[in-house]
Amino acid sequence: MKIKNPFFKKSKNISLLDIIKLLNVKLPKHNYKIDNISDLVNANKNDISFFNSIKYLDYLKKTKSKYVITHIKYKKIVEQYCNAVVVNNVLMSVASVVNLLYPDALNDNVDFLLKPPNKQNFKKIKFGNNVLIGKNVSIGKNTEIGHNTIIESNVRIGQNCIIGSNVIIKYSLIGQNVRIMDGAVIGKKGFGFFPKEDLNFRYPHIGMVIIEDNAEIGCNNAIDRGSISNTFIGKNTFLDNHVHVAHNVVIGKNCIITAQVGFAGSSNVGNKVMIGGQAGISGHLNIGNNVQIGGGSGVVKNIPDNSKVMGYPAKNIRDFLKENK
Amino acid sequence: MKIKNPFFKKSKNISLLDIIKLLNVKLPKHNYKIDNISDLVNANKNDISFFNSIKYLDYLKKTKSKYVITHIKYKKIVEQYCNAVVVNNVLMSVASVVNLLYPDALNDNVDFLLKPPNKQNFKKIKFGNNVLIGKNVSIGKNTEIGHNTIIESNVRIGQNCIIGSNVIIKYSLIGQNVRIMDGAVIGKKGFGFFPKEDLNFRYPHIGMVIIEDNAEIGCNNAIDRGSISNTFIGKNTFLDNHVHVAHNVVIGKNCIITAQVGFAGSSNVGNKVMIGGQAGISGHLNIGNNVQIGGGSGVVKNIPDNSKVMGYPAKNIRDFLKENK
Amino acid sequence: MKIKNPFFKKSKNISLLDIIKLLNVKLPKHNYKIDNISDLVNANKNDISFFNSIKYLDYLKKTKSKYVITHIKYKKIVEQYCNAVVVNNVLMSVASVVNLLYPDALNDNVDFLLKPPNKQNFKKIKFGNNVLIGKNVSIGKNTEIGHNTIIESNVRIGQNCIIGSNVIIKYSLIGQNVRIMDGAVIGKKGFGFFPKEDLNFRYPHIGMVIIEDNAEIGCNNAIDRGSISNTFIGKNTFLDNHVHVAHNVVIGKNCIITAQVGFAGSSNVGNKVMIGGQAGISGHLNIGNNVQIGGGSGVVKNIPDNSKVMGYPAKNIRDFLKENK
Repeated sequence: MKIKNPFFKKSKNISLLDIIKLLNVKLPKHNYKIDNISDLVNANKNDISFFNSIKYLDYLKKTKSKYVITHIKYKKIVEQYCNAVVVNNVLMSVASVVNLLYPDALNDNVDFLLKPPNKQNFKKIKFGNNVLIGKNVSIGKNTEIGHNTIIESNVRIGQNCIIGSNVIIKYSLIGQNVRIMDGAVIGKKGFGFFPKEDLNFRYPHIGMVIIEDNAEIGCNNAIDRGSISNTFIGKNTFLDNHVHVAHNVVIGKNCIITAQVGFAGSSNVGNKVMIGGQAGISGHLNIGNNVQIGGGSGVVKNIPDNSKVMGYPAKNIRDFLKENK
Repeated sequence: MKIKNPFFKKSKNISLLDIIKLLNVKLPKHNYKIDNISDLVNANKNDISFFNSIKYLDYLKKTKSKYVITHIKYKKIVEQYCNAVVVNNVLMSVASVVNLLYPDALNDNVDFLLKPPNKQNFKKIKFGNNVLIGKNVSIGKNTEIGHNTIIESNVRIGQNCIIGSNVIIKYSLIGQNVRIMDGAVIGKKGFGFFPKEDLNFRYPHIGMVIIEDNAEIGCNNAIDRGSISNTFIGKNTFLDNHVHVAHNVVIGKNCIITAQVGFAGSSNVGNKVMIGGQAGISGHLNIGNNVQIGGGSGVVKNIPDNSKVMGYPAKNIRDFLKENK
Repeated sequence: MKIKNPFFKKSKNISLLDIIKLLNVKLPKHNYKIDNISDLVNANKNDISFFNSIKYLDYLKKTKSKYVITHIKYKKIVEQYCNAVVVNNVLMSVASVVNLLYPDALNDNVDFLLKPPNKQNFKKIKFGNNVLIGKNVSIGKNTEIGHNTIIESNVRIGQNCIIGSNVIIKYSLIGQNVRIMDGAVIGKKGFGFFPKEDLNFRYPHIGMVIIEDNAEIGCNNAIDRGSISNTFIGKNTFLDNHVHVAHNVVIGKNCIITAQVGFAGSSNVGNKVMIGGQAGISGHLNIGNNVQIGGGSGVVKNIPDNSKVMGYPAKNIRDFLKENK
């Protein structure tokens, strides 16, 4: 089920023609209406999508998208399933289309709509001093919001949550009974851009952060929102202090992530995964269910279900311990 | 000397009978009064304690506690010194007893008693803007408190300290001439719980953070309070930025802990210990005096006095350098 | 070109005689006026400087300084170029001279001159709630300052910047079009001191942080100001979340520094350097241009231009990958 994103205003009446002009591509011109841009899995039939690696072939086969941005080398593959929009740089073209559809998504501009909470609108909620709340924020009953904390516009927080002090939450949907500790920053744009001499080309981030029920987020954590898909923290998953979660990372339920762990962008972590302190998870990996990753490990490849790994780079923990007796 | 903990309200008139009921254990029932729960070293004769590893045998021999929660496999050992309260899961039972004795200790609820400081009560103290102070806070003369800083109820801070801006201090006793840099969070509950499907079972934290004279705590650090014993930073010990100190960690005096170092729970660090940047110290270890730990090391076993170690896992530094020429 | 430092008040009319007395050294006494203390490269002819390692010989040969603090073992070398001020401990003596010249530079005292911004003085700037601004702060037009953010006295920020919420900036000069994300602390004194039983001897920090145009600084970062020279972040260099930059570190332009990377003091990093997550760079190193450093690496020696390294300790990436297949 796709969760509606209440955060970014989409330009209306964008047609394929606008995208053809923007990307300077050749396509039989017609006025197919483009509703949105989305990854292959989540795309509806009026969404444009993109394909930039053969490892997403299974998603391509099943996508509802009719127009897929891709590189010349994947043109023939894509054309077996839908129309190929051939460009030189897939991700940069995707970023351009996102910019066209969401002209406000590029920067982390300050939310100047914040105000102290109007107690009339938040009747069973306790607020600390100096709390600032944006427009259209929804907070469930019996939730506590600590001092100096900032909840930006359109954020939703469930019931029975405890949000600490000096916390910043933006572009996020938070479930029930979630704890977010002091100093955490949730929902900032991710570290995604194309390096360019003099001024890097910033990737717009229209994804959210979704934190499910009973999760706990430690002190001074930074959880970045997704670029096109969402960053996700599953039910009853606990994160210790100083954890960094980059854009598009998906962490399953019942995981235990100890302090100073870092996740690079777009990795998927299964359920019941335990990760020891200071371990690092590279980008675009799949970590299975019931995986245990030793403290300090550097994980650079996929880890199957039920594995225990340790080391830099991480390997089977028995091998690591044998080599390091 | 045991330092009095002013932070948690204890239930009165708890007897052994209440604990017998709570833990559903068999014991000759009598109305022995239970004052508190404590580790073996700090327990008085009316405190219940616990024994869950043979490595604490020396403490068991000397404890003043008359009733010790333990596992069936240690029953005979414990009974040589005191009464064994035999349970299936020692730590979970300890947590239940803590909850019984301290019903408010489980969550990090927001301290809603905070107010701007009443200058009448703090005459020789300089406060920045938007400072918030709890009930019964004591601050020594000539101490400076930076902007937006939060000092929660019952915290004590000595003379001549400089507390930076955006700092949060709770459940902590701070000595004289201590510096705490901007953005540090001191005294949050530790990352201690028993994993449970759907909703982990949170371990209550009734310990404090104690920071001794002349210590320095860097920017954006997180120092968690102890679960039953205290988290401790010794005299003249300096911590750089982004350091994580988990619950129950004891760091001696004159130590130098550089940036991004992480300590897992319950380790003991001696005096004059130097730890290089990004090193990690696993839980429940003993690090001796005059130890030097190289940057990036992963320490997974005890380190004797006067050692120099480096590596992941950490080993004698000469061996590490020889192997990595 | 040397950039003027507007932050520290210098004592006037310090002569060589005062320094001779302070350091208790023997020198032909005369009243040579001392304007300042500076490193060999930046020293003018009335600045005292210092030489404590043969690796700075080339700088010694070219320095304009006439009086150079050094150790007895370098006396003859120094005297080939200027007057040697011979002391037992070069860096401690330098610290004493800095203290004499800049009596206010030792501590990070709270800036009690902060006030809410006077909108008259900042006409084309948008401020969030609870912003605090020091004396003589200059901010360029179209810059946005987020909520609860603190800009201390004399800081300069260029045009078109976006400064997030809960940010603290002190002793810093910020260029145009710079982004500083929520919770970052820029310009705190560095972690520099001489260990001393009971009370470490703190090194004064009279340097600044300079951040050039188009740079981006991530969430909860800590960038310490320099001790005598400056900490520097070059044009269009992007830092991800939780990055620690120690005093005197110089990072060139167009670099990409991913999350949780740490730099120990005084290292120089070239242009177009990419550093993967959680890598650590030891102190006093030279990292060349176009260098790529893999995630989790521990860099302990200089890296020449155009190298790719990975590992702990870092080595040629091909060797690392071969050994870790």
